[in-house]
Amino acid sequence: MNVTDLLDEAKRLGVMIATAESCTGGMVAAALTDIPGSSAVVERSFVTYTNRAKQEMLGVKPTTLDAVGAVSEEVALEMAEGALAHAPVHLTVSITGIAGPGGSEFKPEGRVCFGLAGSGLPTTTETIEFGALGRDQVRLAARDHALKLLQTGLSRIAENQGG
Amino acid sequence: MNVTDLLDEAKRLGVMIATAESCTGGMVAAALTDIPGSSAVVERSFVTYTNRAKQEMLGVKPTTLDAVGAVSEEVALEMAEGALAHAPVHLTVSITGIAGPGGSEFKPEGRVCFGLAGSGLPTTTETIEFGALGRDQVRLAARDHALKLLQTGLSRIAENQGG
Repeated sequence: MNVTDLLDEAKRLGVMIATAESCTGGMVAAALTDIPGSSAVVERSFVTYTNRAKQEMLGVKPTTLDAVGAVSEEVALEMAEGALAHAPVHLTVSITGIAGPGGSEFKPEGRVCFGLAGSGLPTTTETIEFGALGRDQVRLAARDHALKLLQTGLSRIAENQGG
Repeated sequence: MNVTDLLDEAKRLGVMIATAESCTGGMVAAALTDIPGSSAVVERSFVTYTNRAKQEMLGVKPTTLDAVGAVSEEVALEMAEGALAHAPVHLTVSITGIAGPGGSEFKPEGRVCFGLAGSGLPTTTETIEFGALGRDQVRLAARDHALKLLQTGLSRIAENQGG
């Protein structure tokens, strides 16, 4: 994943980005802002580590959290769409998972749910079972997957714009 | 800087933490959440990369931004106090600086302003001129300094609590 290419493509398309992060705790935003000139693309990031933060910052519904838990595609969807609604951006990615060690909420360590939302795009979600790789490796893998999703989102926006 | 010790001390004191980050772009939150069990301490993080994000997420005043610019102790103060006001936490640190390459706003590369705010504590600010170390090194140095400030904040809270 070449983050410089990602930012260049976003700039070319005039796309501003926000992230909504739980288990990655800001790592996706940190990776994007590692690159000089990222301020033309990265608008803000919501690091919503608690359920309360997910509700207050992104409008995730308490009923969703109660029904399916924070690590779910439903919550990932509400996080990504909430970020799109609460920031002046065109593309958002969300990450919520169990970095470990140990599972929780009767869910296994290494399960991470992602959401991708964008202006004019259908919101998509997915779950990846990274497995018990250890906390650091799960977080890095989740960060890299989120960056790939942003790349996918940019490709879809480029198609909509006619290349 | 031992982040595990920092989190253990915060847990002992019952202190929840939020960060308000500009040039570090989420690196302080990422460092805190690298540690298992950090969810007992890290509530959320505001990554406010643009001036608009600083205003909307933290209540930084447009007049302050206009008068002294985003990289200033005045804005660092409003970011730290804004995070304390906008999250259910006891201690916040803010970081706003020029990671480079190149300076901006007539300010030199490597200048980073920090704020530290806490319940029952006077808010403090400081500026460090890290110099033209390069973007990566300035960001890492700023991250580590922010973690030290959190340690300082915890010591002050411990004193207030009588040890």
